[in-house]
Amino acid sequence: MKMREFRVTRNYLDYPPGSALLEMGNTRVICTAFYEEGIPAFLQNSMVAEGWLTAEYNMIPAATLTRGKRERLSGRSFEIQRLIGRALRAVVDRNEFPGYTVYVDCDVIQADGGTRTAAINGSCIAIYDAFQKMIAAGLITTNPLREWVAAISVGIVENELILDLSYDQDSRAQVDMNVVMTEQGKFVEIQGTAEREPFTDNDLQKMLMKAKQAIAKIIYLQKKSVDLI
Amino acid sequence: MKMREFRVTRNYLDYPPGSALLEMGNTRVICTAFYEEGIPAFLQNSMVAEGWLTAEYNMIPAATLTRGKRERLSGRSFEIQRLIGRALRAVVDRNEFPGYTVYVDCDVIQADGGTRTAAINGSCIAIYDAFQKMIAAGLITTNPLREWVAAISVGIVENELILDLSYDQDSRAQVDMNVVMTEQGKFVEIQGTAEREPFTDNDLQKMLMKAKQAIAKIIYLQKKSVDLI
Amino acid sequence: MKMREFRVTRNYLDYPPGSALLEMGNTRVICTAFYEEGIPAFLQNSMVAEGWLTAEYNMIPAATLTRGKRERLSGRSFEIQRLIGRALRAVVDRNEFPGYTVYVDCDVIQADGGTRTAAINGSCIAIYDAFQKMIAAGLITTNPLREWVAAISVGIVENELILDLSYDQDSRAQVDMNVVMTEQGKFVEIQGTAEREPFTDNDLQKMLMKAKQAIAKIIYLQKKSVDLI
Amino acid sequence: MKMREFRVTRNYLDYPPGSALLEMGNTRVICTAFYEEGIPAFLQNSMVAEGWLTAEYNMIPAATLTRGKRERLSGRSFEIQRLIGRALRAVVDRNEFPGYTVYVDCDVIQADGGTRTAAINGSCIAIYDAFQKMIAAGLITTNPLREWVAAISVGIVENELILDLSYDQDSRAQVDMNVVMTEQGKFVEIQGTAEREPFTDNDLQKMLMKAKQAIAKIIYLQKKSVDLI
Amino acid sequence: MKMREFRVTRNYLDYPPGSALLEMGNTRVICTAFYEEGIPAFLQNSMVAEGWLTAEYNMIPAATLTRGKRERLSGRSFEIQRLIGRALRAVVDRNEFPGYTVYVDCDVIQADGGTRTAAINGSCIAIYDAFQKMIAAGLITTNPLREWVAAISVGIVENELILDLSYDQDSRAQVDMNVVMTEQGKFVEIQGTAEREPFTDNDLQKMLMKAKQAIAKIIYLQKKSVDLI
Amino acid sequence: MKMREFRVTRNYLDYPPGSALLEMGNTRVICTAFYEEGIPAFLQNSMVAEGWLTAEYNMIPAATLTRGKRERLSGRSFEIQRLIGRALRAVVDRNEFPGYTVYVDCDVIQADGGTRTAAINGSCIAIYDAFQKMIAAGLITTNPLREWVAAISVGIVENELILDLSYDQDSRAQVDMNVVMTEQGKFVEIQGTAEREPFTDNDLQKMLMKAKQAIAKIIYLQKKSVDLI
Repeated sequence: MKMREFRVTRNYLDYPPGSALLEMGNTRVICTAFYEEGIPAFLQNSMVAEGWLTAEYNMIPAATLTRGKRERLSGRSFEIQRLIGRALRAVVDRNEFPGYTVYVDCDVIQADGGTRTAAINGSCIAIYDAFQKMIAAGLITTNPLREWVAAISVGIVENELILDLSYDQDSRAQVDMNVVMTEQGKFVEIQGTAEREPFTDNDLQKMLMKAKQAIAKIIYLQKKSVDLI
Repeated sequence: MKMREFRVTRNYLDYPPGSALLEMGNTRVICTAFYEEGIPAFLQNSMVAEGWLTAEYNMIPAATLTRGKRERLSGRSFEIQRLIGRALRAVVDRNEFPGYTVYVDCDVIQADGGTRTAAINGSCIAIYDAFQKMIAAGLITTNPLREWVAAISVGIVENELILDLSYDQDSRAQVDMNVVMTEQGKFVEIQGTAEREPFTDNDLQKMLMKAKQAIAKIIYLQKKSVDLI
Repeated sequence: MKMREFRVTRNYLDYPPGSALLEMGNTRVICTAFYEEGIPAFLQNSMVAEGWLTAEYNMIPAATLTRGKRERLSGRSFEIQRLIGRALRAVVDRNEFPGYTVYVDCDVIQADGGTRTAAINGSCIAIYDAFQKMIAAGLITTNPLREWVAAISVGIVENELILDLSYDQDSRAQVDMNVVMTEQGKFVEIQGTAEREPFTDNDLQKMLMKAKQAIAKIIYLQKKSVDLI
Repeated sequence: MKMREFRVTRNYLDYPPGSALLEMGNTRVICTAFYEEGIPAFLQNSMVAEGWLTAEYNMIPAATLTRGKRERLSGRSFEIQRLIGRALRAVVDRNEFPGYTVYVDCDVIQADGGTRTAAINGSCIAIYDAFQKMIAAGLITTNPLREWVAAISVGIVENELILDLSYDQDSRAQVDMNVVMTEQGKFVEIQGTAEREPFTDNDLQKMLMKAKQAIAKIIYLQKKSVDLI
Repeated sequence: MKMREFRVTRNYLDYPPGSALLEMGNTRVICTAFYEEGIPAFLQNSMVAEGWLTAEYNMIPAATLTRGKRERLSGRSFEIQRLIGRALRAVVDRNEFPGYTVYVDCDVIQADGGTRTAAINGSCIAIYDAFQKMIAAGLITTNPLREWVAAISVGIVENELILDLSYDQDSRAQVDMNVVMTEQGKFVEIQGTAEREPFTDNDLQKMLMKAKQAIAKIIYLQKKSVDLI
Repeated sequence: MKMREFRVTRNYLDYPPGSALLEMGNTRVICTAFYEEGIPAFLQNSMVAEGWLTAEYNMIPAATLTRGKRERLSGRSFEIQRLIGRALRAVVDRNEFPGYTVYVDCDVIQADGGTRTAAINGSCIAIYDAFQKMIAAGLITTNPLREWVAAISVGIVENELILDLSYDQDSRAQVDMNVVMTEQGKFVEIQGTAEREPFTDNDLQKMLMKAKQAIAKIIYLQKKSVDLI
């Protein structure tokens, strides 16, 4: 019951100010962050000077076992990219980059379960680096990432607790849970779904415990990848 | 810290075999269920004879304080209708209505927070009645609803635990959680989101407790509305 | 040969400044009116200070005997909402609310024929009330509704003249006519269609006579619903 | 108060079995008719063997004084193509071409008012010829066009009755009416709209009279164009 | 091995400042040019004052042997309209109409091969005339068309060199090439495609030679059509 | 005047039967090939048993210097994917994989000019491998790739002949030409565009010569990457 192998290739692409190839097992996601001047209309009348951060998520057709269709945007993708955006906004101080929007893109090139958690894990690295570039460019003074955030899936497959489910495990899971937590061990998001059978409070507590341990490990690896540790 | 007033108008519409107007405070949702012969393509090669259940969710433009746009389908609506479908599928035995699809529609006519939970609460009544009509029509023999399911929101607003959040409370909430549970007290879905500040494990446990109590009460009211109690 | 039962529930919703549930027989339409500052681009260069009024029409999927599809906007809906907008604009003085747009929404929750006429009848009540709210808010000084407008369908079914056709009658009609008239007995819109057989001038005159009587009655009921009579 | 010059160029295109360029004043519409085997799904379970006829209407961008946008299909176009289809279906005997669908296309290449009436007038010629080709091909035995149909606009501009309104007249009209009638003087469709001021019964009767005379003349010209007179 | 008959009807439509019906054999294309104030956003920060020219291409459904569908915009149409735009921009001096956009529309009303080349040939006439109207209106001083441009298709069908391929020839061609050249015999665009078998360098040279001769002839006919010769 | 560095990572992804990461300079494209049973409708009535091959092309938003938009499918992408499909179909014997469709996907993850040529070069490797897998699976007996195909861009920048243009060179080019050739030195596709100034026949001949040499080299590298050399 261990997390799959976790690998980061920082600065994976040349053009975005922050980018990482994030791999968890066979799942591979290109995570990037661009900053641009300007904020969305709904923030423009805000009293406080704020920045914004938004995320998009997509899969290439060749990412899956049988070729996927290039769709405009499925309900599933919408749900995931909203989750990524919320998770990252929970740990950045938007007052620290007023007038700028950070665009995060998560493009899955290989999908073997846990693409949304890999996307969050890689995006946090990408935005850290993009913010560092903003500092280097004299646009902001301190990195607005208040604390690191990471995500992991945990589930119950054939009555056994499993961490970081592969696609095959996920499709057989009774319960599937995604947990997003911060460096300080607080929750940003919990999404647990009974795929077949409703689950008990006891199951829930065990899954949360496992997730907590894994997230601490991931945050260690994220920070190491950007030479903070 | 009580749930808002909960009202059911059973058989609200004339044409759908199951329908209910479900009100929680000022939130009002028309929930309906139609059955049709036929199942989606992805089930047709299944070994086991199964039925299917799917849900759609929408708001009329006049449902909100400032008029909404008639959009094709926003990311938010997609997310909600997927949740409703999952919640209901978790408590129906799909082997009990093989070859049929149940279409659930949740049309919000007034939105004051908690529209997704109201939609689940009303839909469960609508499908119960639609299944009863299938029995009356000789299409199935027992009601496939294995146990009742209900949903409630719970959150922390200004450091206080609040149940069944109104729109105004929701927009000020630090944490917002939707819990879907069954009659037997098991979880079907947990979705907790830190809107501003990450939340602690202690907060989580308190919110789950409150939700559990409220759901027991809602299920009592659902069953009473269809004369099962 | 009488009109079906006509019922108004004024102020049906809490948020729109004007709203009514309008029922004619089993047909039920939620009609609402919001006002917003701003006018469409094509009016902005006008010499005269004018307001604008526009309407949208939609059906919820559960409104019909067999469940309808949530479509973006069918040709039929387009046609109907253009008709509603024209009918209302014919009786409001747009110079009396310069710089404002009134958005009318007609959401059919149950459809048993005559939804477009019910929509016009209910919308006229909704805009009257919305304009009263504008007066109360000090935005305008007199109600821009110059005279009331109402609509009715009339047709020939099995060689018999029928008023306010139900869905079943409408589908068997040889001729189907919608008439929109003002309080003073003038025509705003006439739309007569030979569904099967072309119709004679004599048929036309008889249908117009019947429509005229019914519209006088509806306008009486509209005004009574807002306490003007 | 005369109709504008009316010109037909029969067999305007090489490929469709029926086609005509129909000109009324400066308005020019290419009207064509193709037949294809197959009928829409909603007719396939019909007891009676029937054919179907459907119409589409569009404008090229260069048809208007200021260049139009190539839109998918505006509300206005939807409304017009539904009218054209209904008008033609009212005069064809669909039992006479069972199993076939006739596709009518009306492409406006120059628009100076009255494009929908020109489209109906030209399409009736195109379907007559397409049906003749079906006879020649041995697919049917008699021409299903039971009687000819034609359309004209009539309106009141500066208190004067005007026939076949140009774009400029139409935009200044108080009332604008489109009348579709058959060879035998019966109505197929009446659509009268008060553009500014509601109109009286007396106005209506005068407009219908004028329209009747013009339609008789158009039907004479249609029949002459295909050598029936 | 000759070009099909080439016909120009200048000023084919009344409203666009430049228009021509261009026919090559049975292929017929309405080509028009409108000018409007304003330039696209991507040019607005340019150092140099420039104008813009863009083209759209479409077919009416009745243009082909079997009726086509009214699609939004197929990949094929996109490709063709980009080609038309590039070809025309290569011979106009955009500094000569700063602040204006020329909109070219090519609407194919009959398609028998070579619609893209006919579209280029007719559009060059339409823009010449539209620019003359701009001079007449005092908006510009000299015609920005630096030299004329024309296009022709050439191919190998059953091992024989064919100029200006008809639809039937095109569908049997081994190689199909479109050549766009200027009055001075320079290339603007070469697009050669091996439809079945790759082709040799020798084939290429022979096709280019033939195309060159035809283009000189077309440019002669274009200039004659506008009385420059 | 040399080609940029050319690198192949064969079997870049785990799921597609053929895949390669193709890099030319800083341009990086993931090229994949899946085979599926079934052929498009337009081939199903063909006399001869054939297979089909189709291609799709897309860029991730982070591929370019400034973040791109996730569009459905731009005109440019349509044009490129049609080119890729034609180029590959020209060198495969479709009678050798009857009843199967090969889906090629080219996803650009970094774009520094020449993405369409890199896509063709990588796709040819991907389909070779996918066909080898089909042989291994006993579905076909010989590899349908009759000869290898490759593509290169060549242009004139500041009067100098340049091979394999980078984005920066491409945006400054007077002429830009893409050449697709086979192993035997025959042309599959030539697309030459005068970006600013029309070009002479002499320019054309020099560009073709350069392209021919580069393509021979690329085909050597392609075959080496799959151990055929």
